[in-house]
Amino acid sequence: MTPADAAMRWRLLLVLSAVGLGATGVPQPPNILLLLMDDMGWGDLGVYGEPSRETPNLDRMAAEGMLFPNFYTANPLCSPSRAALLTGRLPIRNGFYTTNGQARNAYTPQEVVGGIPDTELLLPELLKGAGYVSKIVGKWHLGHRPQFHPLKHGFDEWFGSPNCHFGPYDNRARPNIPVYRDWEMVGRFYEEFPINQKTGEANLTQIYLQEALDFIKRQQAAQRPFFLYWAIDATHAPVYASKPFLGTSQRGRYGDAVREIDDSVGKILSLLQDLRITENTFVFFTSDNGAALISAPKQGGSNGPFLCGKQTTFEGGMREPAIVWWPGRIPAGQVSHQLGSVMDLFTTSLSLAGLEPPSDRVIDGLNLLPAMLQGKLMDRPIFYYRGNTLMAVTLGQYKAHFWTWTNSWEEFRQGIDFCPGQNISGVTTHTQEEHTKLPLVFHLGRDPGERYPLSFASTEYLDVLRRITPVVEQHQEALVPGQPQLNVCNQAVMNWAPPGCEKLGKCLTPPESVPKKCSWPH
Amino acid sequence: MTPADAAMRWRLLLVLSAVGLGATGVPQPPNILLLLMDDMGWGDLGVYGEPSRETPNLDRMAAEGMLFPNFYTANPLCSPSRAALLTGRLPIRNGFYTTNGQARNAYTPQEVVGGIPDTELLLPELLKGAGYVSKIVGKWHLGHRPQFHPLKHGFDEWFGSPNCHFGPYDNRARPNIPVYRDWEMVGRFYEEFPINQKTGEANLTQIYLQEALDFIKRQQAAQRPFFLYWAIDATHAPVYASKPFLGTSQRGRYGDAVREIDDSVGKILSLLQDLRITENTFVFFTSDNGAALISAPKQGGSNGPFLCGKQTTFEGGMREPAIVWWPGRIPAGQVSHQLGSVMDLFTTSLSLAGLEPPSDRVIDGLNLLPAMLQGKLMDRPIFYYRGNTLMAVTLGQYKAHFWTWTNSWEEFRQGIDFCPGQNISGVTTHTQEEHTKLPLVFHLGRDPGERYPLSFASTEYLDVLRRITPVVEQHQEALVPGQPQLNVCNQAVMNWAPPGCEKLGKCLTPPESVPKKCSWPH
Repeated sequence: MTPADAAMRWRLLLVLSAVGLGATGVPQPPNILLLLMDDMGWGDLGVYGEPSRETPNLDRMAAEGMLFPNFYTANPLCSPSRAALLTGRLPIRNGFYTTNGQARNAYTPQEVVGGIPDTELLLPELLKGAGYVSKIVGKWHLGHRPQFHPLKHGFDEWFGSPNCHFGPYDNRARPNIPVYRDWEMVGRFYEEFPINQKTGEANLTQIYLQEALDFIKRQQAAQRPFFLYWAIDATHAPVYASKPFLGTSQRGRYGDAVREIDDSVGKILSLLQDLRITENTFVFFTSDNGAALISAPKQGGSNGPFLCGKQTTFEGGMREPAIVWWPGRIPAGQVSHQLGSVMDLFTTSLSLAGLEPPSDRVIDGLNLLPAMLQGKLMDRPIFYYRGNTLMAVTLGQYKAHFWTWTNSWEEFRQGIDFCPGQNISGVTTHTQEEHTKLPLVFHLGRDPGERYPLSFASTEYLDVLRRITPVVEQHQEALVPGQPQLNVCNQAVMNWAPPGCEKLGKCLTPPESVPKKCSWPH
Repeated sequence: MTPADAAMRWRLLLVLSAVGLGATGVPQPPNILLLLMDDMGWGDLGVYGEPSRETPNLDRMAAEGMLFPNFYTANPLCSPSRAALLTGRLPIRNGFYTTNGQARNAYTPQEVVGGIPDTELLLPELLKGAGYVSKIVGKWHLGHRPQFHPLKHGFDEWFGSPNCHFGPYDNRARPNIPVYRDWEMVGRFYEEFPINQKTGEANLTQIYLQEALDFIKRQQAAQRPFFLYWAIDATHAPVYASKPFLGTSQRGRYGDAVREIDDSVGKILSLLQDLRITENTFVFFTSDNGAALISAPKQGGSNGPFLCGKQTTFEGGMREPAIVWWPGRIPAGQVSHQLGSVMDLFTTSLSLAGLEPPSDRVIDGLNLLPAMLQGKLMDRPIFYYRGNTLMAVTLGQYKAHFWTWTNSWEEFRQGIDFCPGQNISGVTTHTQEEHTKLPLVFHLGRDPGERYPLSFASTEYLDVLRRITPVVEQHQEALVPGQPQLNVCNQAVMNWAPPGCEKLGKCLTPPESVPKKCSWPH
């Protein structure tokens, strides 16, 4: 599609949805701002009931926008979730999964060889067709080898890191995660970009905030529609905040990080208001997966009333906070019970840009604009995968589990617990339990905490099964899994010598290449 | 104190707090409206994060008022909680406890002999001193024998029942609970006031709503300040709703009851607006104890992220939803982290009326007006009792458990579970565990779910103990327990022949009087 075609579609959308003109008076597709949190849980915002209520800016964003209490990620782990968001496709399709074991969560640590395949079409690549300039600020996590670089997949600018700011924590035996500006590394975490693990102090959210503000101002000055993907990671352990926020939260260090993010979101929205571009800027806030209860209470968040957290396919692992804000377009103070997914951000963004999603592949994302603009409710399933295994599906208010597993007894006995304090007999299982013949079914309205499976003998159960079975069969029959990207690991592919390392004198020598199967215990 | 003294104090408060004039232009103390829910949990309102978000009126009340996320009942069971609210005193002082066993919850079933002692001064008795007319609509639960009648304890009007609408559920072997209008019974639950246990249909909330609206209109017409205590019970199992609300909630029958209550609260607030008396009417919404998880999912609510529920002294048993609404007086959209208690409603109401609390006894309630009007935070402990035992105390953000107990193994093995799906080793114990020497301490900001006790060896733990110990010692040294009212039961005192039964031809013959110790298993 040419930019002219896209502009035509955009003008059509303008008429259909009563969406108005840009700041210039010239029809211009709206700017798109995706604020993606890391390991932030459904229950971490005041508006979602967090008792300390320390997110006034996000709560205001919800009061001025629309809240989605039933919004999901596509996977309870960061890399697959992010790949799904940017491709509009389930990880099982886009390759962000492993077949090294059944139902294993996998992501992109430094050793991983795979990443986003060139055959996948990412949102910023497609938005170019409508004239958008795209920037990613923060965490990429779709592969760190040169071919996976975000600027090779549609982004025009990048400030951030290919992986998370987790280990090796400056132990010098393995490379620290690099921080890039566009094509080149400009330093590494724990070196040029310090994160004090003891105090939790780091300036990164402030840097990421500045990157966002600068980008918005520049694009606005240039009168070009922009896509900003603000993928910050202060709430991923080790959680961090800058000095002015440290020690200010009732919730400890995790809360400090949330407060700094909340403050930053407030500053970003204020800038949009100051620039008078709110009516032409679509802002969506969500998170990549549920709170990492394994890091609680000091470094992990809250999943509110939901069961378990990150790594699991219970609601606590996959239901996300979600707010859309588009003053003057989306009515204020609304709540939509639409079942939504991070993959919908792909399709919705394309629709905003007047673009159609690619027709040569299955797209799982739904266009949420009818829900946002007209309050429509669209029937659609939410699929819960763990690696290559369909663990559960939600349709309407019913969730059917085909497999249950938290983690292995072996890990659990070592103290790894994805459901601390929660133990539901036959539900939070430490062996992989198959229920494909007779799924465990929960009514998420009456029982959001997944504590009371419906009786197998009830009419309600049989009705649910009758509705859910064909949806799942259709999904599974049509499914063509992508080439799994997260099977092979190799120490040689770590960030030893990222582009730009020469200038900085920070190139390290990789070890001999020894590919092996990655180990995915969860 | 004479009404003239009270009026003087009221005019003083007027000056101090910038509280204005009544609708008549004559200084008049504000009307007081307490909306007390039954077994509704902290997590049951949209504004507290309930995922279905079906309480638009209560959410609006919070948006226009002030929310108290740290508000507590005085006991995790209905009768003692209500006695505490109306006396401003802990149940251990006002007699609403038992010594039949250690740490046992007790209330006022039909067999109970005791009730509110004449020596206790109730809020409506005191408000008479400032010229208030008082009405209770709904559940009394402070004793059902003639001497405990609410009109003998300060209320001028009553429409409702002395006990809850629980058993015997119309089995005719024992009397159904009577419904009173003022001094006389006008019928009984399941007879003249049907509650269909199978469908959940009952008109009671609608009747209670009309009673409230009529009372407000009458007092407004008479230009008399009023105290309305709207103590409805639709969310107590067996939960009920009227036909238009049945089947309308995403949450099942419990949600239907919540929706009807929300709608009713909306109608009450609208009436205040229509009558233009919002600036002279103080409205407070809260609940008597945490959600009864034992009745979940169909007949029990949600305690959000908190541990366990009704009957326990964990946060889920005692933290309550709480909203104050006084447009033009209390600033809109505020959140107060003041530790509050239902007992504060006693002292705060007296202060609103320009009255001092009684000086001849210990009053546990705090005047919350400084928190509400000036945003002050006052340091005060919250005591968690179970019967005669101080189970825990919260001071600031720290909670220390001196005893832990959910319920006995015997009951638990019978399927009685106050913490379904929750199991925290050493915390949710099925034996009464003493920790008085070395309390289990939780930081409720970082760990609202009481999952991670502080390390006994930490500086933080020692600091907390240093602060909490003298507060508890002082409390216990000064404590003079009241005469326990809930020790003796006798089938002869049941509601066989309430006043008014003759007119209705509904007097039953009591059995022979056989007093015995009440059995309190929890």
